[in-house]
Amino acid sequence: LSRDTCRMATVLDGKQQASEIRADLKAKVAALQAQHPHFKPQLAIVQVGGREDSAVYIRMKIRAGEEIGVKVTHHHLPNTTTSAELRALIERLNDDATVHGIIVQVPLDSVEPIDEAATLNLISQAKDVDGFSSEHIGDLCKRGPLPAFYPCTPKGCMRILEKAGTQLAGKHAVVVGRSNIVGQPVAQLLLRANATVTICHSRTADLKSHVKMADIVVAAVGVPELIKGDWLKPGAVVIDCGINPIPDATKKSGQRLVGDVEYDSAKEVASAITPVPGGVGPLTVAMLLESVVQSAETFYCSSADWNLT
Amino acid sequence: LSRDTCRMATVLDGKQQASEIRADLKAKVAALQAQHPHFKPQLAIVQVGGREDSAVYIRMKIRAGEEIGVKVTHHHLPNTTTSAELRALIERLNDDATVHGIIVQVPLDSVEPIDEAATLNLISQAKDVDGFSSEHIGDLCKRGPLPAFYPCTPKGCMRILEKAGTQLAGKHAVVVGRSNIVGQPVAQLLLRANATVTICHSRTADLKSHVKMADIVVAAVGVPELIKGDWLKPGAVVIDCGINPIPDATKKSGQRLVGDVEYDSAKEVASAITPVPGGVGPLTVAMLLESVVQSAETFYCSSADWNLT
Ligand SMILES: NC(=O)C1=CN([C@@H]2O[C@H](COP(=O)(O)OP(=O)(O)OC[C@H]3O[C@@H](n4cnc5c(N)ncnc54)[C@H](OP(=O)(O)O)[C@@H]3O)[C@@H](O)[C@H]2O)C=CC1
Ligand SMILES: NC(=O)C1=CN([C@@H]2O[C@H](COP(=O)(O)OP(=O)(O)OC[C@H]3O[C@@H](n4cnc5c(N)ncnc54)[C@H](OP(=O)(O)O)[C@@H]3O)[C@@H](O)[C@H]2O)C=CC1
Repeated sequence: LSRDTCRMATVLDGKQQASEIRADLKAKVAALQAQHPHFKPQLAIVQVGGREDSAVYIRMKIRAGEEIGVKVTHHHLPNTTTSAELRALIERLNDDATVHGIIVQVPLDSVEPIDEAATLNLISQAKDVDGFSSEHIGDLCKRGPLPAFYPCTPKGCMRILEKAGTQLAGKHAVVVGRSNIVGQPVAQLLLRANATVTICHSRTADLKSHVKMADIVVAAVGVPELIKGDWLKPGAVVIDCGINPIPDATKKSGQRLVGDVEYDSAKEVASAITPVPGGVGPLTVAMLLESVVQSAETFYCSSADWNLT
Repeated sequence: LSRDTCRMATVLDGKQQASEIRADLKAKVAALQAQHPHFKPQLAIVQVGGREDSAVYIRMKIRAGEEIGVKVTHHHLPNTTTSAELRALIERLNDDATVHGIIVQVPLDSVEPIDEAATLNLISQAKDVDGFSSEHIGDLCKRGPLPAFYPCTPKGCMRILEKAGTQLAGKHAVVVGRSNIVGQPVAQLLLRANATVTICHSRTADLKSHVKMADIVVAAVGVPELIKGDWLKPGAVVIDCGINPIPDATKKSGQRLVGDVEYDSAKEVASAITPVPGGVGPLTVAMLLESVVQSAETFYCSSADWNLT
């Protein structure tokens, strides 16, 4: 082997890992259905308005759901939907015993003033499979057991690190980004795994010097290829959550997706790295479905008679 | 001035700052009472069992409350109290319109199995002046406005930093400790102030090297004088939350209090430092009373008739 080959990072194949998880989920759903013919996990996706990226994510969730036997219903509301109308829909879904998971696709695309955080808090805790409610986030950030549901992208990051066998306890993890849906919860999960955790963001001075210290880097920034190979400590493990479209004239669509990390330079320095696409993205959808199946199981187990309609 | 004197850290006098805050609160309560004779903020402290340190803290809260015109009632239950009995008391206090703040002194000292987190979640959000409920912690850790209440010791740390005029945005803050009541929430507040934040804990490898990077160090460990002066970056601002009794034969009580930082060596290197006692401790009590007065004000303002009994 040449020196360069030896140095090359292991590619953490999220696509393959997600497909294995989906296969396991499919088998699980089928087994439960064999015993309990009425068992049918259902996820309701609520969308307000017409963001193109949201539409792409929702299509991926529907397709993956169908593949494993989870019914996914798409409640597509116009961007003129009022706060009261959105609340009414969520309350109807809360009360619908055939629905086991409810997600509201964010960001909302609405011309009406709708409080996003308050909307997410309307979802019944038992069905909040995205884990975005204040209560679930609070339980995630507190000591004690993990909440039943917590955000899917961070959950996917941890699943990749677990499969890669990355030691976390006592290691220094640097998370770039502090959003509710990726940066903050992944920092909390790394802390629970006993890593020492640094949280960086747009106001961080000298980001490179922080990244340089990291045994594990999690990028959740939304800036194409921000983090370069020479920012990394040799041997670092890199988890790239970024999904950023950039123009590419060679593609039929005129664009391609890149991460928040400059893959080509980073893979020369890192010991392991997730690609984009095919890294964290597919895991996110798999984790969501896992949570829906878990929620359905909990629901059916707790109902006196498994033969619910 | 000799070189050593020039180098000496500014002492951040929490005792003085807290006494000013209490004086302001006292004037505020008096002014509100002058307008509305029935205005009487009340804090209910629930204690289970007989921990000596809890008793000390509770006495301090009662004394400070009396000083400023906040009624503090101490509900002292035996260590044989059951979960159901504790719940009944909290529900009664939730329903009592004359009570504006409820705190359950933790850790509980009970022979019965009582779920501490579940107990804290029983307190009505409007009266959760310690801010320990899942919902309040979640709102603290999410983007968006601060919750009405969040933990008092971290709030006190921020108030000290504010008064000291310490720039936080873009600075590197290292928090040692990740507890629900100090480490984790102070890290979140520093993050909201746009510091880059590193959270260290008992599993952190080479703690000294992390502390060495910090522009701001917050110690919330519970280990007497763990952090030494030569661990600090010259000019660092040091906030010491530790309150640790150590044996001292020269004292009548046989002991004295020290922080988590070795004060004598640290003050030679830091640019500013809180002493123990007389630093964060007094601020914690002042912040609690501030929250109770705020809660009472919110309650009276929202009631149609200010002349409530
Ligand atoms: N794999 C998946 O399924 C998912 C992928 N994503 C992708 O992950 C990325 C992040 O998403 P999300 O967390 O929702 O994004 P947000 O825009 O909500 O948050 C981005 C974070 O990055 C920080 N940031 C922005 N610019 C810089 C910079 N130059 N240097 C350092 N920090 C910076 C921001 O700081 P500040 O807080 O100061 O603004 C913020 O905390 C995106 O590419 C998104 O497409 C998102 C969700 C799911
Ligand atoms: N000023 C005030 O009013 C208050 C002061 N305090 C004082 O603050 C201190 C901390 O209190 P609290 O947060 O409740 O304590 P906890 O015991 O709940 O938490 C201590 C934290 O310090 C970490 N830790 C313990 N040992 C080490 C070590 N050797 N190196 C690095 N980290 C370590 C622990 O790590 P891990 O998570 O891995 O166990 C834990 O996160 C105490 O001295 C307490 O008396 C507390 C409350 C109020």
